[in-house]
Amino acid sequence: MDMDEVIYRPIGIIHTGFRDKAEAPIQGVFAKAAKGEVVVFPEYADGLKDIEGFSHVILIYHFHLADSYSLVSMPFLEDKQHGIFSMRHYKRPNPIGLSVVRLESVRGNKLEISEVDIIDGTPLLDIKPFVSQFDHRDNAKSGWLSNPHLDMVRGESGRHRPE
Amino acid sequence: MDMDEVIYRPIGIIHTGFRDKAEAPIQGVFAKAAKGEVVVFPEYADGLKDIEGFSHVILIYHFHLADSYSLVSMPFLEDKQHGIFSMRHYKRPNPIGLSVVRLESVRGNKLEISEVDIIDGTPLLDIKPFVSQFDHRDNAKSGWLSNPHLDMVRGESGRHRPE
Repeated sequence: MDMDEVIYRPIGIIHTGFRDKAEAPIQGVFAKAAKGEVVVFPEYADGLKDIEGFSHVILIYHFHLADSYSLVSMPFLEDKQHGIFSMRHYKRPNPIGLSVVRLESVRGNKLEISEVDIIDGTPLLDIKPFVSQFDHRDNAKSGWLSNPHLDMVRGESGRHRPE
Repeated sequence: MDMDEVIYRPIGIIHTGFRDKAEAPIQGVFAKAAKGEVVVFPEYADGLKDIEGFSHVILIYHFHLADSYSLVSMPFLEDKQHGIFSMRHYKRPNPIGLSVVRLESVRGNKLEISEVDIIDGTPLLDIKPFVSQFDHRDNAKSGWLSNPHLDMVRGESGRHRPE
């Protein structure tokens, strides 16, 4: 492998009602009603076997609207600059997105999902089962993303304001 | 963008004591003592600003030893086949790995980490802060990855047996 480049191919597309960042919730967990549909390309559909047993899945996707990145910037609702690796902002060196979504139902190669914070038309790279025992850590310390900041996010009903 | 391909470049390398899958823990959370070091390439080091405030980070990386994939296969310690998207197995259509690790300390462009289940020399694609409020879901249902299976994983001290 050429260690300089990693090449992936989308395995599907994520459809939601959010046309851009301004319409999308900041974090899906604060937007219980936000719904979407994952369409996995038919050639990968066999990989969905048994996924219906999981209440939540992790979607890994490409932030296709990111056309640049900054190593340091000011997140939404913040008045201080932070490093990109201590933020969830989409303008990252490798614009990879990660969302835990609720899996409502599975029909063939289509997954109905909710608690979605993803923009319509986003290319899907991978789906992993969400497993509390693997993915949760008790008493995690969240640095600048502390409770006052999170309360502000909730206070915006989890939505971005226009920039 | 050509929707057929997504190209990323590693932002660093993950160093651990695990030379291959047989040596690596199955899940880092079951291997508290497993340590490693993330070396972020100097040109991206500014993006680490404020990361030391987080007790855990999410590493997204390329499973560089995956040379093929199966849409359906039999996971470790299981006697049934499951779809790749309901497993964490590394032989995935896009071999993207995701681990929540404990951040022990930060020194310049180097992160000392523990609870690590990653093979030495793995190319790092992204680092995101772990935020309980974003990433945890209460009462998540884990399908075939239910408690009997997880107890077996723990019973192996979280390590793979040779194949």
